[in-house]
Formats: sequence, structure tokens, C-alpha cells
Amino acid sequence: MYPKSIMDLIDSFKKLPGVGQKTAERYALTLLDASQEEIETFSKSLVNMKKNVQRCKKCNNLSESVYCDVCENPERDHGTICVVSNAKEVFSIERLQTYQGVYHVLDGLISTQKGIMPEHINLNSLIERSKNANEVIIALNATIEGEMTSLYISKKLEGISNVTRLAFGLPIGGQLDYADDMTLLKAFEGRNKI
Amino acid sequence: MYPKSIMDLIDSFKKLPGVGQKTAERYALTLLDASQEEIETFSKSLVNMKKNVQRCKKCNNLSESVYCDVCENPERDHGTICVVSNAKEVFSIERLQTYQGVYHVLDGLISTQKGIMPEHINLNSLIERSKNANEVIIALNATIEGEMTSLYISKKLEGISNVTRLAFGLPIGGQLDYADDMTLLKAFEGRNKI
Repeated sequence: MYPKSIMDLIDSFKKLPGVGQKTAERYALTLLDASQEEIETFSKSLVNMKKNVQRCKKCNNLSESVYCDVCENPERDHGTICVVSNAKEVFSIERLQTYQGVYHVLDGLISTQKGIMPEHINLNSLIERSKNANEVIIALNATIEGEMTSLYISKKLEGISNVTRLAFGLPIGGQLDYADDMTLLKAFEGRNKI
Repeated sequence: MYPKSIMDLIDSFKKLPGVGQKTAERYALTLLDASQEEIETFSKSLVNMKKNVQRCKKCNNLSESVYCDVCENPERDHGTICVVSNAKEVFSIERLQTYQGVYHVLDGLISTQKGIMPEHINLNSLIERSKNANEVIIALNATIEGEMTSLYISKKLEGISNVTRLAFGLPIGGQLDYADDMTLLKAFEGRNKI
């Protein structure tokens, strides 16, 4: 058995997604060789994140103040709202440095299987916000749950705002014969003139 | 960009072995949903490990006191010393609950390629300890570096103590036609009467 202090740290690491006993041991033993300073930085960053990070009052994105950086930015187009299922996706889209609008983080998707109903996710404030928006872009996963949520939102926003959805099709670099039937079908349906 | 507190935590996670940007993000965002208590436990366990864990003065194993649990245990056979390259391997062998002797942790293997010479690893105290031992069991990796270190130790301990080495052969459940030539050769050489 490892000394108790190591076991405790292994237990904490094991709570991370996809981390089992072996990986947790490896992480803990690696940190044994880290400097005092590195350990303190790690330890403080854990506590600080919990203390400082909150949800943006407007869009539910991660933020260190009441409103997030995107909502606070006057140069963004506040008439365009991109709907995503979780905050991580905001950062994926921000990395593109192309999208100029704002976001709306649902924190989940409607799922009859998991018992997640529309009232369990952050949908009401979206309907409220959409009244002043020119366009609501739905950027949800191409899964059954993503489809259900998209359908629900587009029904709810009928007559309130223009609702669009990210295009489906072949991924760039993807090979036609490796694409699944559904993707290929969607790619055909969405074909464009060149 | 993520808020600074999240970025800081991501940076700490990225220092762990095999953890890149994506995995570090996933770990950090998972911990956003962890309870205050869980975060504090994690944070404290990091600092405590660094503070409490030291090396056993006798065998160089991980320990929370001057001598490790194995060296402190009077029921262990202190005349049998098992030589391993790192402390993690002590715990692998302990898990078997079969070995009754004590350990000696080298913290490395001789490697001409990496410039690790005998004096860079914990070898001198092994020679000293071996004078009172009946048997020194070499349990090092079956790699070039493990072989070199084993050879060095067995030469050094000639006439001082009995040196044995873990058996090589087919792994249990292993199939003969999947075994590499070297393993098969060693399995032939080490064949036993049944």
C-alpha cells in the first residue's frame, strides 16, 4: 500500500473523467518529483477556480465576473445568439476567431431517455433574449438529443426570431467511403452550387 | 479564451504525464462541477503529499516516516532484499501479498545512452546492505538498461551475497505464436521439469 498522503491524492485524481487506478498512481507519483512551487500553484489554482468562476447572468457562459467577456464586449453583435449545449463549446467556437455574435449556454440537451425536460435546461431565458435578436444560430450536437433540442427551440422561437442551424456534411479531409449513411445523406441534401 | 482561473488550472494539469490541452480542459471543467469540499480535499492532498512523503533512509522506498512500513516491520525477512528500479514497483510486488523480504529502490537504471552511471543511482548502499543478506533478488525490467544494471549488481555482489533474478518466460495467458523470439528463447532456456 502507498503511504496515506499518496493514497489520498490518488483518490482525488480517480474522480476525474477517464482516470482509473493506474493513471491516478502515475499522476500522483509524477507530482512527488514536482517542486514545492509547482505543487502550491496547482493546489491554489484548484481553490481559485472554484472561488472565482461563476456563470454569466446573461448567457450562462463561464465567467469571473457577473457578465462574461463576450457579453461585456460592445464590439460583439448582440443581435446574433449562438446556442450551445455547454460552456466548453463556446471556447471551441471562440478559437475560430470568426464568430462575432454572442452565446447562450443551455447546460444540457433535452433527453427523454435521461429524463431531461425543457425546463431542466437553460431555455426560458433564451426565449426571452431571442425577442431582441435578428438570428438565433443553433450549434448543437448532431445526435438524437441535439436534434430534439433543436426542434424544440425552433418551434418555440417561431415568429420570434430567425432560427438557423450549423450545416451538416462531410468533414474536411474526410473520405466519402468512410462517411456514415446519415452524414452522406445530409451532405447530399445540403449540396451547394459551385 | 477561458477565464484566467480555469486557464491556470489547465496549465497545472498539462504538466501531468500524457495530459495535453484537450484532456486538461476536460479535467478542469469537470472540477468546476465538483463540490467545495471535494476541491478542498484535492487541494490539500496535493500539499500534504509534498509535505509528508519522504524516502526511507534504509531502502529509499516512499514513506511518511524515517523508515518505511516494510523496513519497520519486524515480521519481514530482512535477510532477503528485492532490488527494484522505482518505488512504484514496490507497490506492484506488495499487491501480490507473497513476498516476505524487504526492498531496495534504485531510483533509476544504468544507461550509457542517457548518461546514467552506477554512481547516479542508489547502488552504494545496496552493496553495504547486501553484506548481511542471504539473498538479493534482482527484479528489474527485461530491457537493455535493466540487463546492464543487473549485470553490474551481480558482479559487484560476487562473493558478498547470493544474487538471483526474476524468471523470464511466457506470460500467463500468453500465446506461443505471439511471443517474441527473445521471450521464447528465454522460456526454452528456463524450462522446468513437470
